[in-house]
Amino acid sequence: MRALVKPAPGPGMALRDVPVPPCGPSDVLIRVHHAGVCGTDLHIWEWDSWASNRLKPPVVIGHEFAGEIVQLGREAEAAGLLAVGDLVTAEGHIVCGHCLQCRRGAAHLCQRTQIIGVDRDGAFAEFIVMPASNVMRLDGIPTEVGAIMDPLGNAVHTVLESEVPGSTVLVLGCGPIGCFAVGVARAAGASLVIASDFNPMRLALAHTMGAHLTLNAGSDDVLARVREHTGGDGVDLVCEMSGHPSGHAQAFAAARLGGRVNLLGTPSRTTEVDFARDVIFKGLTLYGVTGRKMYETWDEMRRFLRAGQLDPRPVITHRFPLESIGEAIQVIKDGQAGKVILEVAA
Amino acid sequence: MRALVKPAPGPGMALRDVPVPPCGPSDVLIRVHHAGVCGTDLHIWEWDSWASNRLKPPVVIGHEFAGEIVQLGREAEAAGLLAVGDLVTAEGHIVCGHCLQCRRGAAHLCQRTQIIGVDRDGAFAEFIVMPASNVMRLDGIPTEVGAIMDPLGNAVHTVLESEVPGSTVLVLGCGPIGCFAVGVARAAGASLVIASDFNPMRLALAHTMGAHLTLNAGSDDVLARVREHTGGDGVDLVCEMSGHPSGHAQAFAAARLGGRVNLLGTPSRTTEVDFARDVIFKGLTLYGVTGRKMYETWDEMRRFLRAGQLDPRPVITHRFPLESIGEAIQVIKDGQAGKVILEVAA
Amino acid sequence: MRALVKPAPGPGMALRDVPVPPCGPSDVLIRVHHAGVCGTDLHIWEWDSWASNRLKPPVVIGHEFAGEIVQLGREAEAAGLLAVGDLVTAEGHIVCGHCLQCRRGAAHLCQRTQIIGVDRDGAFAEFIVMPASNVMRLDGIPTEVGAIMDPLGNAVHTVLESEVPGSTVLVLGCGPIGCFAVGVARAAGASLVIASDFNPMRLALAHTMGAHLTLNAGSDDVLARVREHTGGDGVDLVCEMSGHPSGHAQAFAAARLGGRVNLLGTPSRTTEVDFARDVIFKGLTLYGVTGRKMYETWDEMRRFLRAGQLDPRPVITHRFPLESIGEAIQVIKDGQAGKVILEVAA
Amino acid sequence: MRALVKPAPGPGMALRDVPVPPCGPSDVLIRVHHAGVCGTDLHIWEWDSWASNRLKPPVVIGHEFAGEIVQLGREAEAAGLLAVGDLVTAEGHIVCGHCLQCRRGAAHLCQRTQIIGVDRDGAFAEFIVMPASNVMRLDGIPTEVGAIMDPLGNAVHTVLESEVPGSTVLVLGCGPIGCFAVGVARAAGASLVIASDFNPMRLALAHTMGAHLTLNAGSDDVLARVREHTGGDGVDLVCEMSGHPSGHAQAFAAARLGGRVNLLGTPSRTTEVDFARDVIFKGLTLYGVTGRKMYETWDEMRRFLRAGQLDPRPVITHRFPLESIGEAIQVIKDGQAGKVILEVAA
Repeated sequence: MRALVKPAPGPGMALRDVPVPPCGPSDVLIRVHHAGVCGTDLHIWEWDSWASNRLKPPVVIGHEFAGEIVQLGREAEAAGLLAVGDLVTAEGHIVCGHCLQCRRGAAHLCQRTQIIGVDRDGAFAEFIVMPASNVMRLDGIPTEVGAIMDPLGNAVHTVLESEVPGSTVLVLGCGPIGCFAVGVARAAGASLVIASDFNPMRLALAHTMGAHLTLNAGSDDVLARVREHTGGDGVDLVCEMSGHPSGHAQAFAAARLGGRVNLLGTPSRTTEVDFARDVIFKGLTLYGVTGRKMYETWDEMRRFLRAGQLDPRPVITHRFPLESIGEAIQVIKDGQAGKVILEVAA
Repeated sequence: MRALVKPAPGPGMALRDVPVPPCGPSDVLIRVHHAGVCGTDLHIWEWDSWASNRLKPPVVIGHEFAGEIVQLGREAEAAGLLAVGDLVTAEGHIVCGHCLQCRRGAAHLCQRTQIIGVDRDGAFAEFIVMPASNVMRLDGIPTEVGAIMDPLGNAVHTVLESEVPGSTVLVLGCGPIGCFAVGVARAAGASLVIASDFNPMRLALAHTMGAHLTLNAGSDDVLARVREHTGGDGVDLVCEMSGHPSGHAQAFAAARLGGRVNLLGTPSRTTEVDFARDVIFKGLTLYGVTGRKMYETWDEMRRFLRAGQLDPRPVITHRFPLESIGEAIQVIKDGQAGKVILEVAA
Repeated sequence: MRALVKPAPGPGMALRDVPVPPCGPSDVLIRVHHAGVCGTDLHIWEWDSWASNRLKPPVVIGHEFAGEIVQLGREAEAAGLLAVGDLVTAEGHIVCGHCLQCRRGAAHLCQRTQIIGVDRDGAFAEFIVMPASNVMRLDGIPTEVGAIMDPLGNAVHTVLESEVPGSTVLVLGCGPIGCFAVGVARAAGASLVIASDFNPMRLALAHTMGAHLTLNAGSDDVLARVREHTGGDGVDLVCEMSGHPSGHAQAFAAARLGGRVNLLGTPSRTTEVDFARDVIFKGLTLYGVTGRKMYETWDEMRRFLRAGQLDPRPVITHRFPLESIGEAIQVIKDGQAGKVILEVAA
Repeated sequence: MRALVKPAPGPGMALRDVPVPPCGPSDVLIRVHHAGVCGTDLHIWEWDSWASNRLKPPVVIGHEFAGEIVQLGREAEAAGLLAVGDLVTAEGHIVCGHCLQCRRGAAHLCQRTQIIGVDRDGAFAEFIVMPASNVMRLDGIPTEVGAIMDPLGNAVHTVLESEVPGSTVLVLGCGPIGCFAVGVARAAGASLVIASDFNPMRLALAHTMGAHLTLNAGSDDVLARVREHTGGDGVDLVCEMSGHPSGHAQAFAAARLGGRVNLLGTPSRTTEVDFARDVIFKGLTLYGVTGRKMYETWDEMRRFLRAGQLDPRPVITHRFPLESIGEAIQVIKDGQAGKVILEVAA
């Protein structure tokens, strides 16, 4: 089959012919229809220090995908819950099931997580093998949406780890996951959603996803505008999606006394924090968001999508075939893309 | 009456004769038996920048106390819930009842809080007037314990803002509130309580309060020992009571994946935080602790004390009369004291 | 002033001239604009066994209202948080602040609650006196909506005592509070809201308030339709607003394994419950709803109303002047009304 | 191997020689050391209507056990988390992993649960095969305790589904699980644990497990004594372990306003409930307890056991070899036993 592979240490990816992976007794083999390109894939392409420390080439890249089941292992078939022909997506974290985190309902923090497209072969390929327990039927959700339920799930996790109905929400950073977070907050009944970014194209996407107010962090006084729109209180929830240390300071300042800051954007350097002023005397709660709750987040997301309360498709700005991965990576680097997906099969 | 007063801007306090405060319709007048000396009182004595910006002398100092009701205002009397002769303590935060925080069950973060002994006359005096709604009957708890329920409540708030039964807890910093936190964690069913400090006298108090393991941060490898005692996982809950930036780094490192760090110790400077490594990829929750939940914390604390599950008295190392406030302040500055109380009347 | 009074034991109410009530130091005096007529007022009118055991005539009736502050007591004025001219509504439960429930964030269950219009003079009058702490500014919400925030708050309490975003909700009984619950569930991001009643007029109101599906309990197989629309699972949340024992059986059967039944409708007789089959083996949670959380419910409700996410006005079907109380009671008894309000002043 | 089998429809069990079960790729084969006899086994022995509708003989009985791993399937071995020689116990509910409940963190309510010893071969045998994911290492917990972690887990689930530290708890019914619940409540920091039963032997066991007060429901006024010991408030949590309709009425009456009733005892007939008086006006929460949370309950239980906070062994009153199952059943029927275990191997 054709697959995008990191063939050896170093930048770039290569389109190669590789064997279709074997389907173990508890596995299913899936023909990939669509796959999402993630910031992580950019790190892998660039072969930065994180990537070079983590990946063991050769490995097929890609962890966001949806497609069609074409084969089931013996045990997966016996369970009778999935069938050939089912359109599905899958959680890309394969977990141990035995560590403290797996046993305490926090499998997304499993001590032995293997991520597809990073620690084992991934989804930028015609076929992928997944443990049946990681697979979810789409039940009418289109595969191009199924292919981005991984990052959409990051947004659902970030937003719903708070009591959203009637709340005021500030989304800092309007990359694809930030834009998704805007839509999730609206779907979940937030009363006010404010989105901030430096990039007008991204702010336009945030507006399309339902932001009541968009602020250009380069020209607007974000903090002043947030206070103005919240009666001086600040917001109940800040979703920090930017990963910039300046975003952290703004997040703590914009949250109300007793408010919450959920952090998803991963900064590349440290932040100076005034814990006394910004966290302790404010009674704030901070929460670090990793992945998607397995599988509460997926179920919540499916409900929003199937009910039509949330449509992430306006965030998809570019579609490429597998062989154009270089172009896909470039539009992301240029900062002029929302979500970029690969069309593998249809 | 005799009272310890900050008579004018500048260091120190003065023992003065001042009028017994008038008892308003919703107030009660309390004859003070015991009062606790707090780190805040040290800041006030020293007249540091916080104190000089906040206090408007002359003001009677002191916010931790217990005593006997000697008079009730008309409305307080009509309510029929308190009576002359009742031994009581009181929450020292007087709140507005109308702001967002007061209306959302977070009155301890009220936007208009007035603190006794800081923003209005306090408890280092023979008598104090308090709104009846802030007053709680001791119902058998001795007044010397009642006098320290304010800082004990800080510890209860810090520890119980987590699911304690069966959990593993690290207390960083064994000043009086850290030592209280050890006792609270044990009373609440923690399976393992580790306490760390640089000061052997404080570690001995922490041991007395029930720590399974005490670590000297100057000579022990705290992180290694924590991992060794938690099967390599790290602890469920870190109570950061030290306020040292080094405590923050240790707190984040010692917490398990998906764990919690409750921060009470107020640092005097900023901390460098690696949010990606220490918070986001670990899925941590951080919580800033201000005061005591009004009044959940008080009720929980009363139950522990009345059931005999928690006895904070070993932490009380010094007792002084009002006029020896200078000596009381000195033993605290010397770092050789646990909790210091003033014996006002009996 | 003019007021609707229960002058003595027995059915009916009388329009009387009574003195304007005196405004105590912590009180405000409010000129009533609109008042809501509640099922409780019907019990009082009819003088049923509950009413005859509880009320001590003479008493001014009415507990749902909104109006304008015309006078403040000394302490209320000093607080500076309310002013003459403010349009306000108020929580009608006046609580002690000292009992276990008041101290544990459950003041709506206070052991010494006094309800206006039941235990002390109420709001079917030109003026009413309320403790300032019970009063909330409308900040742009019309007084006719303010007048029904008490029952609307019952619905908010019932619905939000669950995790609503993305959930499936069944509302059993579409009287005014049931219809409000439909609107609240939609505003809070429910993915599916099903409403059931025997009365087509009420089902039409539920539809107007946003029900995705309305079922006539007299002709539809409610349980079968619920399962059909939930993939066979049953709903996450049942709001039992009918108070009929048949509603209870249906509620337990319609809830999914691990689901929740919040009960507000107060039955007049006992229900046979098969706890093993319906509660224990299903892992259900049942919750009895009394009043409104003080004051979380009020704040949540204000947010929904001010953001325009929830408009309860379609449920208001009748408006009468004070003197037409008999007519107001009759339309409620006839079962052809949604919410009925009294127009007292404007 | 030797096994206790229900060979055909009808009362009793038979000791038979049956083949050692085959170990699938994701399974482990365990040599049973100890097994617990449960009330469910009594129903199976008696062949009551539940048993005759559910079981498909021949089936090996028994679902509570601990033992030693003697073989691992290929995938279980590859995972590297369990090893031959490990002493282990296991959750006896084998779940689908795909239904709504499994996906929402409520696998104990899985729609396709298979229970060992009921729906498939069980543990009253020399060997049992279990999916590796259901197996937990004992890590020092003795196998006779491991063998009763299933019912002990029922108690942990019942008690910890509440905020226990500092709370007041009433345990209604002191069979083995009720006695365990007493010990769990103490370990988790309850301030007052009251236990009630008609059977003096069981009350003595409850006392041994740490009940502050034991009440004989035949001679004591349970409700009056509960109120007397809770300042008139009633208890925060009632654990209903009796399954008697009279227990339900008592549970609702003994719970405080805003309290909680967790129901585990499964009644054989319906209960008359006055929802208005007992649930709605009291603001109660009721929760039906099925099984053990997978696997939060197991982790919490392991912590209590390994820390020595909880020792269930005093509740074990009888030990029998496999062949004496008839005698084991008889002592349970006689009501003179605590927990009864079978000693299979050592």
